[in-house]
Amino acid sequence: MLTQQEDVLPPATATEKAELVPRFANQGYSEDALTARRQWIEERTGTKLAHVGACTIPGEQMRGNIENPVGTVQTPLGIAGPLLIHGAHAQGIFYVPMATTEGALVRSYERGMMTLTRAGGVTVRVYVDENRVCPVFLFPDVAAAHDFAAGLDGCFAGIKEEAESTTRHGKLLRLECQPVGREVILNFCYFTADAHGMNMIVKATERACRWILLHTGATDFYLFSGHSSEKRGSGTLLPGGKGKKVVAGAKISATLLRHYLHITPAKLVDLWRHTVIGHMQANAIGYNGHYANGLAALFIACGQDVANVVNSAVGITNFELTEDDAIYASVTLPSLTVATVGGGTALGTSNECLRTLGVAGKAGAPKLAEIAAATLLAGEISMAAAIASGEFVSAHENYGRNRPEP
Amino acid sequence: MLTQQEDVLPPATATEKAELVPRFANQGYSEDALTARRQWIEERTGTKLAHVGACTIPGEQMRGNIENPVGTVQTPLGIAGPLLIHGAHAQGIFYVPMATTEGALVRSYERGMMTLTRAGGVTVRVYVDENRVCPVFLFPDVAAAHDFAAGLDGCFAGIKEEAESTTRHGKLLRLECQPVGREVILNFCYFTADAHGMNMIVKATERACRWILLHTGATDFYLFSGHSSEKRGSGTLLPGGKGKKVVAGAKISATLLRHYLHITPAKLVDLWRHTVIGHMQANAIGYNGHYANGLAALFIACGQDVANVVNSAVGITNFELTEDDAIYASVTLPSLTVATVGGGTALGTSNECLRTLGVAGKAGAPKLAEIAAATLLAGEISMAAAIASGEFVSAHENYGRNRPEP
Amino acid sequence: MLTQQEDVLPPATATEKAELVPRFANQGYSEDALTARRQWIEERTGTKLAHVGACTIPGEQMRGNIENPVGTVQTPLGIAGPLLIHGAHAQGIFYVPMATTEGALVRSYERGMMTLTRAGGVTVRVYVDENRVCPVFLFPDVAAAHDFAAGLDGCFAGIKEEAESTTRHGKLLRLECQPVGREVILNFCYFTADAHGMNMIVKATERACRWILLHTGATDFYLFSGHSSEKRGSGTLLPGGKGKKVVAGAKISATLLRHYLHITPAKLVDLWRHTVIGHMQANAIGYNGHYANGLAALFIACGQDVANVVNSAVGITNFELTEDDAIYASVTLPSLTVATVGGGTALGTSNECLRTLGVAGKAGAPKLAEIAAATLLAGEISMAAAIASGEFVSAHENYGRNRPEP
Amino acid sequence: MLTQQEDVLPPATATEKAELVPRFANQGYSEDALTARRQWIEERTGTKLAHVGACTIPGEQMRGNIENPVGTVQTPLGIAGPLLIHGAHAQGIFYVPMATTEGALVRSYERGMMTLTRAGGVTVRVYVDENRVCPVFLFPDVAAAHDFAAGLDGCFAGIKEEAESTTRHGKLLRLECQPVGREVILNFCYFTADAHGMNMIVKATERACRWILLHTGATDFYLFSGHSSEKRGSGTLLPGGKGKKVVAGAKISATLLRHYLHITPAKLVDLWRHTVIGHMQANAIGYNGHYANGLAALFIACGQDVANVVNSAVGITNFELTEDDAIYASVTLPSLTVATVGGGTALGTSNECLRTLGVAGKAGAPKLAEIAAATLLAGEISMAAAIASGEFVSAHENYGRNRPEP
Repeated sequence: MLTQQEDVLPPATATEKAELVPRFANQGYSEDALTARRQWIEERTGTKLAHVGACTIPGEQMRGNIENPVGTVQTPLGIAGPLLIHGAHAQGIFYVPMATTEGALVRSYERGMMTLTRAGGVTVRVYVDENRVCPVFLFPDVAAAHDFAAGLDGCFAGIKEEAESTTRHGKLLRLECQPVGREVILNFCYFTADAHGMNMIVKATERACRWILLHTGATDFYLFSGHSSEKRGSGTLLPGGKGKKVVAGAKISATLLRHYLHITPAKLVDLWRHTVIGHMQANAIGYNGHYANGLAALFIACGQDVANVVNSAVGITNFELTEDDAIYASVTLPSLTVATVGGGTALGTSNECLRTLGVAGKAGAPKLAEIAAATLLAGEISMAAAIASGEFVSAHENYGRNRPEP
Repeated sequence: MLTQQEDVLPPATATEKAELVPRFANQGYSEDALTARRQWIEERTGTKLAHVGACTIPGEQMRGNIENPVGTVQTPLGIAGPLLIHGAHAQGIFYVPMATTEGALVRSYERGMMTLTRAGGVTVRVYVDENRVCPVFLFPDVAAAHDFAAGLDGCFAGIKEEAESTTRHGKLLRLECQPVGREVILNFCYFTADAHGMNMIVKATERACRWILLHTGATDFYLFSGHSSEKRGSGTLLPGGKGKKVVAGAKISATLLRHYLHITPAKLVDLWRHTVIGHMQANAIGYNGHYANGLAALFIACGQDVANVVNSAVGITNFELTEDDAIYASVTLPSLTVATVGGGTALGTSNECLRTLGVAGKAGAPKLAEIAAATLLAGEISMAAAIASGEFVSAHENYGRNRPEP
Repeated sequence: MLTQQEDVLPPATATEKAELVPRFANQGYSEDALTARRQWIEERTGTKLAHVGACTIPGEQMRGNIENPVGTVQTPLGIAGPLLIHGAHAQGIFYVPMATTEGALVRSYERGMMTLTRAGGVTVRVYVDENRVCPVFLFPDVAAAHDFAAGLDGCFAGIKEEAESTTRHGKLLRLECQPVGREVILNFCYFTADAHGMNMIVKATERACRWILLHTGATDFYLFSGHSSEKRGSGTLLPGGKGKKVVAGAKISATLLRHYLHITPAKLVDLWRHTVIGHMQANAIGYNGHYANGLAALFIACGQDVANVVNSAVGITNFELTEDDAIYASVTLPSLTVATVGGGTALGTSNECLRTLGVAGKAGAPKLAEIAAATLLAGEISMAAAIASGEFVSAHENYGRNRPEP
Repeated sequence: MLTQQEDVLPPATATEKAELVPRFANQGYSEDALTARRQWIEERTGTKLAHVGACTIPGEQMRGNIENPVGTVQTPLGIAGPLLIHGAHAQGIFYVPMATTEGALVRSYERGMMTLTRAGGVTVRVYVDENRVCPVFLFPDVAAAHDFAAGLDGCFAGIKEEAESTTRHGKLLRLECQPVGREVILNFCYFTADAHGMNMIVKATERACRWILLHTGATDFYLFSGHSSEKRGSGTLLPGGKGKKVVAGAKISATLLRHYLHITPAKLVDLWRHTVIGHMQANAIGYNGHYANGLAALFIACGQDVANVVNSAVGITNFELTEDDAIYASVTLPSLTVATVGGGTALGTSNECLRTLGVAGKAGAPKLAEIAAATLLAGEISMAAAIASGEFVSAHENYGRNRPEP
């Protein structure tokens, strides 16, 4: 029998009798703890959590990934492919697992993938492979902040040593200075191998910050300045540095476009021109059709940190008419944060999905990044074609039928 | 025995022998079809999909939500609460289901919720409850575009009638004109009740666009202009109109802040000031700590369209020092797209999670929006406090232990 | 002999003996005062201000336009034209006065104008003619802010009466609510006739704000919230409302493009596509080649408030290939702030320049807005052509020879 | 007697008889040519240009600064000061020439300057002193673009040699790669000494581009990609590199704030907080009160390229409460483009104004940049105080009296 730990909270005020979610020994990751906790919420809300309770991930494996666990949620998983990729890391035919409840999404990506594959495949390249933490240092005045920035090069070795003393995998590549008034935002740019690495590099950076406080004129610091744009949309993501910068492109002939996507190159380019103006008018960051759809489906399937879809979905899609009346289509993803080690990547279905792509574990992250970019390219041409050809609504009528109507 | 349907694709070129994902009768939503498709991918990739196959959602129920299904993916589900809400729709104590693999996330939201609850709860209000589609109309020249815009008021009744002829739930509220050169982007602003409603209003808008083509000087249109910012980050989301505009706020005394979050009001406000500058320097849209974390966890749990986290995570968090040395904390979410009808909301675990919140089905969406906003407020104060108090790293050391190190 | 007024400042600290600029009776706008003040600065800096002193604007006329006057600065004025305009207000051939020191600028605009004129002229339309002030109101909590917004329609008549009691020309058209947390930004949208009108509408708005403080739950207000984007660059300028929203367009045949601008339609469109991507990558607001050049030159010549170039230079230029292989070129200027009454419009050279355009005084502002838009269109096609044809450098070699080299 | 040169344009079409502005020998910079051209426009428009004709800058000196000259426009010039600056380049008391027609502007800056001076002066530092041109290179596909970027370091010496072969002053510091799809934007970052240097570095870059075309896989290039944000507002300006990055700051005691600006530190900081939110809600770039006012006035006075106010007015103002209840105020100007050599800097009044500041000619530009930053800081505190204290309207009533109202 589990013993519920004492509530460490102070006595509630008279007006509130809000109970804590039950506490269990050792934070409650045993199957019994999950069950007891689930029953507690079932009773409180009068809702039977049968599907939630049917989870196949052992509770103890969830430790480090979630607190107060009660089971798992299930998201339908479909397979889209074939997708032929010519990357530096991913090479060959892939079938991409996508978890979603948006009808027509998998079918749409699939037809884009088929088109690209028949066109000879997608070329992908990784330009940058980094992650960053951006603390801010405080100074008494503008002159002291300037002195700090001016002397930073001389401190780099010391800072790097401190930062890397906390991690075997993270490497501090360089520091970038962003002074504002009497404070200096300092971008710590790391290589994090196949891990997303935020915990790793945040810890490393905190250690380095304490060193800086001792060895420079800084009077204080905050470990986060808001500048990194982790899980937020910002213009600073476009040049890259928050995750991997990946570019994917393919040339598609007019014949293939017409056959698979029912569209001419000229019409596709015309759509691009007009929707670019819509993006400008909306003051959008970059330009894309629906990166977030493909990314969310891939991230949920593969145990990525799904909140990172926000930064990863920033980029620029381009459709260009070539001299021989084909299309050169490309996606540029400057801030793609994917991992094949750490986070949720080892858990049940996540690990299975990563293994279907051949990217589980070490050396998998750049390959996963290339697969993600090629997948998004497929989604972009498919959706653009559906809009430009006027088939968008009918496609969703066919596949997305779980609507509240009539 | 299932018969695999003929491949409708043309013969592949000599260099490619890429197989399609198997086709089955009636698009293959039976359990046998799921199994056969799963086995096909298992064989092709040499990966056993045991966890994926352990799904409890019947295949046929996935129709309309996904294509080429092979099972489900599982994401750990935790419960955070208690969260006391004083909304126009949500009133009382809530325990919020959150699906994530990011260690410490649920614990962090939970301590924010506890703090807010002890502080007397969160006040929430919905300002706008709309969704929009933004087609673009083309004209021969600037004068014709201007004539169109000038005459639009006179056409509204006709356009509204056409649009609403396709839907029982969607109501066309108004049109907004955004001329650019010789084209006019037209925002169709709808009320969509408890559905997300994109399929509904896209269909309605297409019908209206065809009417406009017949009755005005427009020479052509694209159903999407890129202006709506559905699933994209853009400045135009801040005034609202893509989803629900929701504001949540609470006053928290210095005593409670110190007790639960180990921070003073002054320090919390100081962090806000400095991180606001980081956001500016990053050219971010709005300001927030980590809306995406809470939204992604809630959206995955509750069967929302997870790609909508991108637009929903745009907003502004504010921490203000009050005259009596407390904090007034608020979140403003101008583009929150949540639904309790349609999409993935009826499926197994999603429906269970929605029911624990008392928001499944009709009249649930505004209530879910208020719960979401209150949840994000909890996440904002908890994370800000962790950063400002210097506890961020140690908290992640305690809870987020599933890292690749050492 | 002028008597210098006593220094109203307190005694300087020991370390500083900074003198004030001399004070004179009645604030010193007489010729003698200008001379004495100019001599004072000449003596202090050892610089003879002969050109500054050669001003032909009587000192007393400068009252209300400048303080501590010492004369005038001179900027070279050139004439660009002919420019054929088909506007709702401006109709016929115009020669545009442009004040600049950037070699090749006038010549570049001139060749654009000649091209447009030969192409049959520029069509221009004004969509919006407004100006705005955006105060922010403070409330105790989110609920009170929501109540205020909900009740605003009922207050409009009272607010309008108060605001318009201070002005004969300004008309309050509507209010727009932008709630953030427990505060509400309120856009006061006015028609200001031919004046820029900021002084007018700020005064009117302050009066209305005091009324609101008395009649609603607002606890305080600031007259400016930072939201109006007066003289600042922001995304909110794109939909319009800060000044006049003006669109200008023209169709130019391939023959004319080749003859005057040495470029093909296809090449011009290709440049547009590539530079649009550069704008996106820069996270620019909208898209344009060099609006600021034409605007600054026109604004300095015509006595406009030159700082308003910042908001006026936001917009979108478009070059489209037509089916008959011509170009349809357009500029969209959502926030053009021009005036023909008030400010510097009555002074010496400013008034002369306005009169050469036939826009001095009443009913001139919309006409000036149309001329400005047509002028910018000329600059856009000329500069784009120079870049696309590779003639940019050689043109500046010919005309911009006042460089520091060799 | 001047001979008018033949019209080099082809015969106008029948429908247009638009005359060119008269052509004269050697492009018409003699006094007679100016007079004849002015008379021509006077006759055509029925407007006497007496003030325009009263210019004291010899026509021949305008060559290279303007085409089709007819005289000069005059803008009232006032003097604001004293302003005590502690820069690396500017040290001591300055009186700043400001050309404007906006009443109250000079007085407002003056009171800010007096406050800063009494507070002990403004500390200013220059972080970056560069200018840039950003051509874009085209490639057949994504792989070729990546190869180019990967090989760029090896080409730097060759590129630098080519670029610098065209200039004695410009130094190519480094190249920055911004790949998008199959194209690569290449930022050429130069030191340009005291010149603005656009003509210089554009010429140098064009030469380097031709070299790159010969020596790499690039198939074509455009000299401008739209990425540099010269004279445009964009987020990419915030990190700096388009001009000088300058930071100015000062500490002001509560006593001085109250005495000179009638405001408390707390109130000033409160205004900052609220207006920051307004900027966010407007999707503004950075944050400032009215940089453009001070910059436009200084740029017109000193013969700067006034269109550069658009990029120069991007930055971040900060007001911070210090522990001893003072204010630390700062401005950060990442893209300040000022020059003391070339452009309009040698002309009559411009040169006089530059000389009053002691910055005319060589070694003047960094000093001018520091003076500009300190001036803007004065404007920011003065305007913010006027808003926060409620004196904004009354101040403009006193000084800005040239409004259209009776």
